[in-house]
Amino acid sequence: MKFNSYFNDIADSYLFAEVAARTAKYAAAHPDKKILRLGIGDVTLPLAPEVIKSLHAAVDDMSAKETFQGYGPYEGYEFLRERIRNYYSSYGVKLALDEIFVSDGAKSDLGNVLDIFSRDNTVLVPDPVYPVYVDTNVMAGRKIIYADATEQNGFLPMPDYSVKADIIYICSPNNPTGAAYTREQLKEWVDYANSLGAVILYDAAYECFISDDRLARSIFTVDGARTCAIEFCSFSKTAGFTGTRCGYTVVPKELTRDGFSANKMWLRRQSTKFNGVPYIVQRGAAAVFTDEGLKEIRANIAYYKNNAKLIAGVMDGLGIKYTGGKNSPYIWLKCPNGMSSWEFFDYLLENAQVVGTPGAGFGRNGEGYFRLTAFGSEEVTREATQRIQKLLKK
Amino acid sequence: MKFNSYFNDIADSYLFAEVAARTAKYAAAHPDKKILRLGIGDVTLPLAPEVIKSLHAAVDDMSAKETFQGYGPYEGYEFLRERIRNYYSSYGVKLALDEIFVSDGAKSDLGNVLDIFSRDNTVLVPDPVYPVYVDTNVMAGRKIIYADATEQNGFLPMPDYSVKADIIYICSPNNPTGAAYTREQLKEWVDYANSLGAVILYDAAYECFISDDRLARSIFTVDGARTCAIEFCSFSKTAGFTGTRCGYTVVPKELTRDGFSANKMWLRRQSTKFNGVPYIVQRGAAAVFTDEGLKEIRANIAYYKNNAKLIAGVMDGLGIKYTGGKNSPYIWLKCPNGMSSWEFFDYLLENAQVVGTPGAGFGRNGEGYFRLTAFGSEEVTREATQRIQKLLKK
Repeated sequence: MKFNSYFNDIADSYLFAEVAARTAKYAAAHPDKKILRLGIGDVTLPLAPEVIKSLHAAVDDMSAKETFQGYGPYEGYEFLRERIRNYYSSYGVKLALDEIFVSDGAKSDLGNVLDIFSRDNTVLVPDPVYPVYVDTNVMAGRKIIYADATEQNGFLPMPDYSVKADIIYICSPNNPTGAAYTREQLKEWVDYANSLGAVILYDAAYECFISDDRLARSIFTVDGARTCAIEFCSFSKTAGFTGTRCGYTVVPKELTRDGFSANKMWLRRQSTKFNGVPYIVQRGAAAVFTDEGLKEIRANIAYYKNNAKLIAGVMDGLGIKYTGGKNSPYIWLKCPNGMSSWEFFDYLLENAQVVGTPGAGFGRNGEGYFRLTAFGSEEVTREATQRIQKLLKK
Repeated sequence: MKFNSYFNDIADSYLFAEVAARTAKYAAAHPDKKILRLGIGDVTLPLAPEVIKSLHAAVDDMSAKETFQGYGPYEGYEFLRERIRNYYSSYGVKLALDEIFVSDGAKSDLGNVLDIFSRDNTVLVPDPVYPVYVDTNVMAGRKIIYADATEQNGFLPMPDYSVKADIIYICSPNNPTGAAYTREQLKEWVDYANSLGAVILYDAAYECFISDDRLARSIFTVDGARTCAIEFCSFSKTAGFTGTRCGYTVVPKELTRDGFSANKMWLRRQSTKFNGVPYIVQRGAAAVFTDEGLKEIRANIAYYKNNAKLIAGVMDGLGIKYTGGKNSPYIWLKCPNGMSSWEFFDYLLENAQVVGTPGAGFGRNGEGYFRLTAFGSEEVTREATQRIQKLLKK
């Protein structure tokens, strides 16, 4: 038997593991210090009351023979897919029910979707980038090329027609940079993909943070996207489901090539290698998109956006350049005094006991940058930003 | 962009989809007839009270800031992995905690584990076989060879040293045949795999149905398995989790080749393409392996085993040959009067309104056989077996 030797080509340490290791080492050496974490993008607010109510009711369903649920549909229950469809139509995107696939999270689907593509494709990812886009393709032995996201282009690379890509990753609002495309900018990517016959894997996990109407909440708000895009979305950031695990993927029926249909292939992949999301979790997710549920989760999102504003305000005061913070839970800042990402990580940890994420972990262009997230509690965010202000203003 | 053209090589219709289609067609044409389903292997009893209690408590945890759970460990919470380790040690298998990976089900992991193997491996699957073993490998472009499971070998093929396999699938107790290997028989497979440097993917999803002590509940009860086997298990059949989604995979640290460690690769795969099982579900699963939980789920298993006994008794009375039914929820019977599998399917549906699963759907050697499952309610099982008896005794 031969193992998959492409695993040799994956960078050895996962970014967040290294962050955790350095933090743990510091904590062990300084047990008296209170460490504040604005690093990993994990939420901190509890699930919304409507979701909790729905989860309890679903657990009750599982306790009685008459209401018990066994294997569900691979693509998710209709009660949830209908709510997702309504959510899309609330901002003008019309979808067929069988274009929506419920999953256990955007990360799983972003990785697993590669099963439907040939190994023999060239992958274009922005740099810096969510490491999972790269690692999943390295594992499969695909060739990867990069689109530079830099201060010069506002961390929003635009298509370069001299580059021939087959599979294009776009994350907007972006992780880690917090930058978000307008519909006009996305249209350029859609035109580029359609002209090449490429596919765009569009990660919309942070769409709920968009408040500026010019920005795209879905790539399907852009003409032409239905022939070239797959969209991945998640309840993780929308409704605090990081530990509850539910997402959804939209695969339009017009995305076809050489007699293959992405929609049919994805259904085949899922029915063969997946058995659906827990009934209980789907009931909880369905509560998110009720009137009451939406009201509650929007209050939570406003809470995190207020944290982002706090962080952004301190950066403004210090004269530190950054993107994000307005239509995104991430603040992507330029490390002060020419420090490298990991230098700044250690500097912040040692002098302010604040943990962030080094931009270098997201790619070559991330060097010299640093990511802070708005997902902490307001108290932690306030204290952390005060410490940062005190440390850097001197 | 090129799609994965190996999808062309997958058989077009998934077995259970065809069963569902024929049944729906019959039901539409005969709305007055009561159809009894002993087809798909889905459970019917509600979750055990201890599990329900634990699920409710976990939902409450998610409702308060102090007890809320965000991203969990990729490999599952320790509270669950410790219970799984204890369960294994209750029948003599010692495992390290980091050899246990919690998943959303055996089916997902059986498919996803292929990520860690090179495409360039020869896969040996028994025939008949759970279709997922074949389809997942066809999708990835691997060469598949078959080990004949027939009446002659009691549907338990043994190793053939003239065949050079790299990845070997074993499911025991078997789906669909209900046949189960003794430890001595499994030892022959382990020796064969070790002599070739092959890996055994051991599907133990039905281990909880074993009552005969000579049969293996885990491949790790066999000497030498730790250098050649990965084991997949599930709460689906053990505790009725088909709609709740939780399983576990054991990857021993001794499974290494050419400097690669299966355990490390699987952790890398999971941390890159998976974000863990819902906290709530893991809490529910942990309740299964408490004293009270085990008592409750064993009562449920006894209920299904009684159904199996009912079906087996009728087959005995009719003089129909079968395997399974004792240490398995499946009864694999020879179609009477030389009927083909699908002929018998239609015959039973039309004349007794009983739905089973045609053996031919599981492979070439399944032709002329038929699978009935013990997962229905006792009432349905009793009525279905009475109808079968009445139909076939004439």
